[in-house]
Amino acid sequence: MTTRILCFGELLLRLASPGRELLLQSPQLQVHVGGAEANVAIALAGFGHKTGVIGTVADNALGRNAAAELRRHGVDTARLRFAPGRMGLYFLETGALQRPSEVLYDRADSAFARAAADTYDWPALLAGAQFLHLSGVTPALGRAGADAAIAAARAARAAGLHVVFDGNFRLKLWQAWDGDPAQILSELFAVADTVFADHRDIGVVLQRDFSGAPAAEIEPVAAAAAFRAFPQLRRIAATRRVQHSVDCHDLAAHVFTRDGAWQLPAQRLDGIVDRIGGGDAFAAGVLHGLLTGRDEDYSLRFGLAAACLKHSVPGDFLCLATGRVEALLGEAGFDVRR
Amino acid sequence: MTTRILCFGELLLRLASPGRELLLQSPQLQVHVGGAEANVAIALAGFGHKTGVIGTVADNALGRNAAAELRRHGVDTARLRFAPGRMGLYFLETGALQRPSEVLYDRADSAFARAAADTYDWPALLAGAQFLHLSGVTPALGRAGADAAIAAARAARAAGLHVVFDGNFRLKLWQAWDGDPAQILSELFAVADTVFADHRDIGVVLQRDFSGAPAAEIEPVAAAAAFRAFPQLRRIAATRRVQHSVDCHDLAAHVFTRDGAWQLPAQRLDGIVDRIGGGDAFAAGVLHGLLTGRDEDYSLRFGLAAACLKHSVPGDFLCLATGRVEALLGEAGFDVRR
Amino acid sequence: MTTRILCFGELLLRLASPGRELLLQSPQLQVHVGGAEANVAIALAGFGHKTGVIGTVADNALGRNAAAELRRHGVDTARLRFAPGRMGLYFLETGALQRPSEVLYDRADSAFARAAADTYDWPALLAGAQFLHLSGVTPALGRAGADAAIAAARAARAAGLHVVFDGNFRLKLWQAWDGDPAQILSELFAVADTVFADHRDIGVVLQRDFSGAPAAEIEPVAAAAAFRAFPQLRRIAATRRVQHSVDCHDLAAHVFTRDGAWQLPAQRLDGIVDRIGGGDAFAAGVLHGLLTGRDEDYSLRFGLAAACLKHSVPGDFLCLATGRVEALLGEAGFDVRR
Amino acid sequence: MTTRILCFGELLLRLASPGRELLLQSPQLQVHVGGAEANVAIALAGFGHKTGVIGTVADNALGRNAAAELRRHGVDTARLRFAPGRMGLYFLETGALQRPSEVLYDRADSAFARAAADTYDWPALLAGAQFLHLSGVTPALGRAGADAAIAAARAARAAGLHVVFDGNFRLKLWQAWDGDPAQILSELFAVADTVFADHRDIGVVLQRDFSGAPAAEIEPVAAAAAFRAFPQLRRIAATRRVQHSVDCHDLAAHVFTRDGAWQLPAQRLDGIVDRIGGGDAFAAGVLHGLLTGRDEDYSLRFGLAAACLKHSVPGDFLCLATGRVEALLGEAGFDVRR
Amino acid sequence: MTTRILCFGELLLRLASPGRELLLQSPQLQVHVGGAEANVAIALAGFGHKTGVIGTVADNALGRNAAAELRRHGVDTARLRFAPGRMGLYFLETGALQRPSEVLYDRADSAFARAAADTYDWPALLAGAQFLHLSGVTPALGRAGADAAIAAARAARAAGLHVVFDGNFRLKLWQAWDGDPAQILSELFAVADTVFADHRDIGVVLQRDFSGAPAAEIEPVAAAAAFRAFPQLRRIAATRRVQHSVDCHDLAAHVFTRDGAWQLPAQRLDGIVDRIGGGDAFAAGVLHGLLTGRDEDYSLRFGLAAACLKHSVPGDFLCLATGRVEALLGEAGFDVRR
Amino acid sequence: MTTRILCFGELLLRLASPGRELLLQSPQLQVHVGGAEANVAIALAGFGHKTGVIGTVADNALGRNAAAELRRHGVDTARLRFAPGRMGLYFLETGALQRPSEVLYDRADSAFARAAADTYDWPALLAGAQFLHLSGVTPALGRAGADAAIAAARAARAAGLHVVFDGNFRLKLWQAWDGDPAQILSELFAVADTVFADHRDIGVVLQRDFSGAPAAEIEPVAAAAAFRAFPQLRRIAATRRVQHSVDCHDLAAHVFTRDGAWQLPAQRLDGIVDRIGGGDAFAAGVLHGLLTGRDEDYSLRFGLAAACLKHSVPGDFLCLATGRVEALLGEAGFDVRR
Repeated sequence: MTTRILCFGELLLRLASPGRELLLQSPQLQVHVGGAEANVAIALAGFGHKTGVIGTVADNALGRNAAAELRRHGVDTARLRFAPGRMGLYFLETGALQRPSEVLYDRADSAFARAAADTYDWPALLAGAQFLHLSGVTPALGRAGADAAIAAARAARAAGLHVVFDGNFRLKLWQAWDGDPAQILSELFAVADTVFADHRDIGVVLQRDFSGAPAAEIEPVAAAAAFRAFPQLRRIAATRRVQHSVDCHDLAAHVFTRDGAWQLPAQRLDGIVDRIGGGDAFAAGVLHGLLTGRDEDYSLRFGLAAACLKHSVPGDFLCLATGRVEALLGEAGFDVRR
Repeated sequence: MTTRILCFGELLLRLASPGRELLLQSPQLQVHVGGAEANVAIALAGFGHKTGVIGTVADNALGRNAAAELRRHGVDTARLRFAPGRMGLYFLETGALQRPSEVLYDRADSAFARAAADTYDWPALLAGAQFLHLSGVTPALGRAGADAAIAAARAARAAGLHVVFDGNFRLKLWQAWDGDPAQILSELFAVADTVFADHRDIGVVLQRDFSGAPAAEIEPVAAAAAFRAFPQLRRIAATRRVQHSVDCHDLAAHVFTRDGAWQLPAQRLDGIVDRIGGGDAFAAGVLHGLLTGRDEDYSLRFGLAAACLKHSVPGDFLCLATGRVEALLGEAGFDVRR
Repeated sequence: MTTRILCFGELLLRLASPGRELLLQSPQLQVHVGGAEANVAIALAGFGHKTGVIGTVADNALGRNAAAELRRHGVDTARLRFAPGRMGLYFLETGALQRPSEVLYDRADSAFARAAADTYDWPALLAGAQFLHLSGVTPALGRAGADAAIAAARAARAAGLHVVFDGNFRLKLWQAWDGDPAQILSELFAVADTVFADHRDIGVVLQRDFSGAPAAEIEPVAAAAAFRAFPQLRRIAATRRVQHSVDCHDLAAHVFTRDGAWQLPAQRLDGIVDRIGGGDAFAAGVLHGLLTGRDEDYSLRFGLAAACLKHSVPGDFLCLATGRVEALLGEAGFDVRR
Repeated sequence: MTTRILCFGELLLRLASPGRELLLQSPQLQVHVGGAEANVAIALAGFGHKTGVIGTVADNALGRNAAAELRRHGVDTARLRFAPGRMGLYFLETGALQRPSEVLYDRADSAFARAAADTYDWPALLAGAQFLHLSGVTPALGRAGADAAIAAARAARAAGLHVVFDGNFRLKLWQAWDGDPAQILSELFAVADTVFADHRDIGVVLQRDFSGAPAAEIEPVAAAAAFRAFPQLRRIAATRRVQHSVDCHDLAAHVFTRDGAWQLPAQRLDGIVDRIGGGDAFAAGVLHGLLTGRDEDYSLRFGLAAACLKHSVPGDFLCLATGRVEALLGEAGFDVRR
Repeated sequence: MTTRILCFGELLLRLASPGRELLLQSPQLQVHVGGAEANVAIALAGFGHKTGVIGTVADNALGRNAAAELRRHGVDTARLRFAPGRMGLYFLETGALQRPSEVLYDRADSAFARAAADTYDWPALLAGAQFLHLSGVTPALGRAGADAAIAAARAARAAGLHVVFDGNFRLKLWQAWDGDPAQILSELFAVADTVFADHRDIGVVLQRDFSGAPAAEIEPVAAAAAFRAFPQLRRIAATRRVQHSVDCHDLAAHVFTRDGAWQLPAQRLDGIVDRIGGGDAFAAGVLHGLLTGRDEDYSLRFGLAAACLKHSVPGDFLCLATGRVEALLGEAGFDVRR
Repeated sequence: MTTRILCFGELLLRLASPGRELLLQSPQLQVHVGGAEANVAIALAGFGHKTGVIGTVADNALGRNAAAELRRHGVDTARLRFAPGRMGLYFLETGALQRPSEVLYDRADSAFARAAADTYDWPALLAGAQFLHLSGVTPALGRAGADAAIAAARAARAAGLHVVFDGNFRLKLWQAWDGDPAQILSELFAVADTVFADHRDIGVVLQRDFSGAPAAEIEPVAAAAAFRAFPQLRRIAATRRVQHSVDCHDLAAHVFTRDGAWQLPAQRLDGIVDRIGGGDAFAAGVLHGLLTGRDEDYSLRFGLAAACLKHSVPGDFLCLATGRVEALLGEAGFDVRR
């Protein structure tokens, strides 16, 4: 069976202090593999889809192991290129109560960030696939990343793939070089079928501030503006997060198409295990709905359930079979399954 | 001093993933010894009672260590028989938020499950004891277990012991063979003085569904039916659990005798450490009241407090001195004891 | 730059069971360095102040490592004396839900507790400093500790330092010898500029019970009584803690001067990581305000924020830069910082 | 690129006590995936070959993870069948000095052991491959395993594959049922091109005892007898191990063909990390030589080097790139590579 | 079955740094229960004998757990008295190469050391037993310990028990008070049937230096002198240890009776896991021979094998079934048992 | 007391796989702080000397913690400059048997490597010190490092300090840019009083190959050549290492002055715990001799003993009091110190 969904982005290693300790409070680090796009690939593989990743990885023990971890979870790594250079890292200190988690990026100058756009042969890489997923992290890494992301998205559109773009706006990364996010992200929105973006992401792209609208209209207004600006765009989805403390959030979600709007009430997440990758799990969940031909409502509910479940699992990604997500959509209850 | 309470059942090894990780997410398993009846024995030993276990254990390093763990907690293991065969295992993945814990049983064909009823010399095993505790897990394991449980309970009754039976209905186990739970459990209810059972357990035994009654009457109605069906039965107790999430439950409890009913309002358990064994700790707590000649109200309150405390301790059993349980019955507060 | 704040007290080693396990449930102990006064020194060093500790430490590997841990966090250890004897220890079992944490002290007869008052050359030790911090733990350790604490406080006052005294009343310690807390603590209150004490601490000193006053007046009444009794006293501050469960507290705080009163509403702390040292972090936070010339309101808010944050970090002390505390005073939110 | 080497056998989970502890001395188990044939597949994948495994695996979290671990190391798992049943386990206590390591098998009645020979469609499974590797463990598991192994080997031979058989004689497994090892293993030797077997394995098959021959002739005599008995057999290889203590072995190796004999002097292995899987690494190393067209001498030297290296790595298998094995064939030395 | 062997001495907790780390190099301690006499009791229980311990233990969580660990290994703890006071501790830093292991004692003033001789009712405690084992550690702890040890040994002799005394001379402990080892130990040698002592121990007792004799005669000469001085003494046994490095020792052993001498050549122990408790395992092994009616040669060989095996197991004691020790007496070899 | 010895170089974090695992074989990394020059500073601080480090460290949590670790061990960190940029890392996989340890450097572009020579104010930094220690690692990092090292050494010489230079030649680092090691290292040799260098280091500097000389003359000949080429040079010292396996080395050492030569026979190190930093411990040991006014023989013996001991301790540096090193110079033996 050929790979149906391809994800283009950087693999990262997360090096985290144990439990709720401060970074290096004790001399130990827990390692997880992550990366926004890889997270989506792994979650979709867990849902039973044929997925693969495209990217450039350091040709050393770290890079080889990061790729191996993806393979372990059933993701095809044959499209990864191993190149000299370093592996992108991030150090994580997990917060608690009113102490937010801290991410210390050490990803500059990685093999991925240095990979020129023309090192990728897009027609060959995309052959046979139906979906291409990419995110706003890649263009934020620098000129090479921005060029590669745009080339990838355009090639995918040209080849008839469904292009999925997750905004994932990270101000810190954009500030490290002189890229123009509005211009670059616009080029990506312009070829996307589905975008994961809330009013802030759309605001960056359209250089507008939607936050002045009445609360209930902020997202619809922003979505409408995006649909006007990008005629090929078909679907806009996002989660909304209210944080009562570091460990206790409410998570809601919505999806807009040109024809309709679906909104789910917030789920209370009290006692969060690991918040990172929640958005990626949401994206994977929504895409699972699309890939299995479900309607927008089901896709959204499956996406929000996947996002919620991600908060209960350590590491960057969710890797659960669909049955365990579907259990949340019903009345399964929370007792031990035995 | 002779042993006053004997518990008949299977020792199990729990192999659990660390923290809130998925099973085998990292290559490590935490080991705990458990088993519904052993949990009761250990908790009662912690409360200062002379307890012992009866059963069959694999004659290998795993079985020897499981028995040793019971000895460590003060339980007499002289009545255990070591026999060829395997040790019953279960793998546990502890859940969080909306992801329920998952138990993967690997207990089929264990030395205990294969032990024929006639391998136990009941009069000799029960000599000198005052209470026999058994649970619905043993008869659910297969024909040999069912026969052994019934023989044990009848021998105990014949010898004048107080027979305690904890329903512990596990559909999955019954489905693995062609046993008839209603018929088998009835034989156990028929010789029990005290049963730990809620309306669902009673419903299985009496082949009735009590859930249609008004909420406040479900348990009284079921208890009344049980008292009618089993004339020797003196006491029915159970906890009631409402699960707001995997980590946050409300736990209430009640006891019915032929003369009265006692109900305790729910305790909120928010931030549960380990939910397994909560029912066994409740049973042990109630039995502690009986063994020390306290009234039903005290026994029930002590039982619920023990059950609540179990949720704060990792592993299958509670092993705390009575003082630490009694502290919950008063106004001791929650600050560090120093 | 010379050291501005000196803290006099005992260094302790905390030996704690992992996670929420009972003590020695598994054969492993986590080690943290602590001690009420050292905790204040470390927190202030983290806030950028030049701090040092005064005391007597066991001249062995344990004592050397405890001092090293302070140095690691930027505290000057040159005023520590290494003497034959043992290191004070305490064993900690961290509670959960309704099971309180248990501290098992093993600090009797430590090198610190045995150090006679005249082993300290106060004028030399205090030279150049502006603040001396001590707590009610030291005088509670025995005659030598009481004498040393009083000598230290008087010497500091004589030398023009700002004397800070944290009540930290521990009944168990006082009961182990025949000291008179009211008399001894009075001598310390009598030379203090700032005391950290609530109505119970003041009640011990003045041998009065303030708890009968209307709830809102208990603390003001007690403070007023203290100001009357101790004419040099300038400031009284304390936190107030309401414990809904072992893991969920509300923490409020107030400060009284002769001219005014400031009270902060309670912060909800749900999912506490480590409650020990919360009071020390509060003291350090308030002192940070004083040391940087801020007003009472800011100092109190900074102190309460520091105390709250301490509950999110494992170990006895808080060691965070001021920026991370100040973030709580604003609208920074709780999301991952990346 | 199609898979060149297929390995048919059972996946096992190893659950080992940490370090040199006795089993369950502390409540923790380290998990590794293993199985003689899987070990060969992984080692060959590490050497850069396209490998795959054939077999039946428990359709639960344990089986899914075992397969995932193989995928992680680059082995194709598409030919695994997931079936109801349990996962084969073994518990390991690693020895030291004069205390031998102990293996406690808990693999009876596994999904693999219960898989009937006709559940495998050999022509389809073997399509496109050039080598089939199997071992004496599979036929030892019971009638189903014996039938499946013979069917696999015959189908492979019929399809023109090079059949590799590793004797791996385990008396304990054969004794658990009434199989006739001489007869069954003969059928496998009869269709093998290459066998890994020493004089004891050959002795079992031919029902002869070669140990009476002069030391230097034992293996040549046994090999000659095997070549006479099995006319299609082309190559016999084995290691010879002398154990000075549990941690210090000498490891030599030889290969015989119909035309020649190659013998390597013993390597001293002092300070062994993990001895399990040494023979599988040897087999993989020799096969690497064959697969890359090297002569017998190189293949043997590469095989012995791989076997030695296995002893330096925890777990059942070796997963190193060829360069790290080849370094042992030269004069690379043992200093830190930096 | 009544307890045959009683061991009188102090239970200790060992708190050790992990692996080969320096003490507190990382913030973690591994806990083991030990004590020379308890080690003997546990080893004998492992060999299948009914053993019990006599002593005084701190009445807190540490003491309760230490007793529980003995129970876990099958030792009867009913004769332990729980008393207020602290638990004896020792901190261990395990050495390597040329860095010797370091023990930091923190056992002064323990509940055991403070227990007066008259807190023990010897006739009642010894009733029914056949052997009493004690060691030179107890009298070295102070006047109370010395008195108690002498009283115990005399009571045992009066009651017809076989008295076993293990010299275990520890200069550091004797130096901490003004006891006279020669005089006190003489009183113990004077009532012992069997002593574990080499020429240095005997030299302390007899106030002679035997080291000037020719190497081969040192131990026989010392033993002869002891037999002359103590007419009731029947057996003297000891190991001799040559240390090539911290990790590599040669261990020999001998036993003298009034009628004969048995000497075993040294065993090479290269790659020692844990050297502590080697002498206690030797004593237990020799006693096992006596208890099972074997001759001196077998007892000595079993004792040396047990001592060697102890070096392969972490912790203070050996707990292995006799079969695993006997395997060393034969030709069992060192390969994995599977 | 002012700092006597200053060490200029880069602080690194070592991230190592646990035990003997391959890198990322399990998802955990052990963290140690290191760096050739920091290792020397820490070892000297352990020996009781006032030491400090000079350098540039990343102004983030990693850099702050690395500095804190030095402070913990008593090294003055006041001369460290915190600058934007990343922290130099290296990943370590510890080998065994014939599998060499592997270092994966990830130190390019670190805050230290980017620090221009003129960011250091040498006269101010060196004020009051007597020794400056630097190594060949710093000039190998690139032009900035080379310039800074030369400036430092020249400033130290001009200010009358004793300049110590440790060759530490790392080909891989020099190859990463176009530096000329012979020319740059010559400039450092030209101002050094003491160099740690063997014939290979000297060969690089003098562009000669000394390895053709008779074995016993290689080092004397190389030293003589160095003394001729660098007239101010007073002392050349080095260790010689023969590696029998990854875990078993022989370590010898020598020192040459213009007046004499001292050579020590090799010490056997069998069962090495951690080989990294052995050369730095040697340098610190020799410097300890110089700083305490001992002769060359003592200094060399102390140096070799320190180097040997380093192999017994995990991590990059040795931190032991002189007494534990001196024990090796005598006849102290290897038994447990208790």
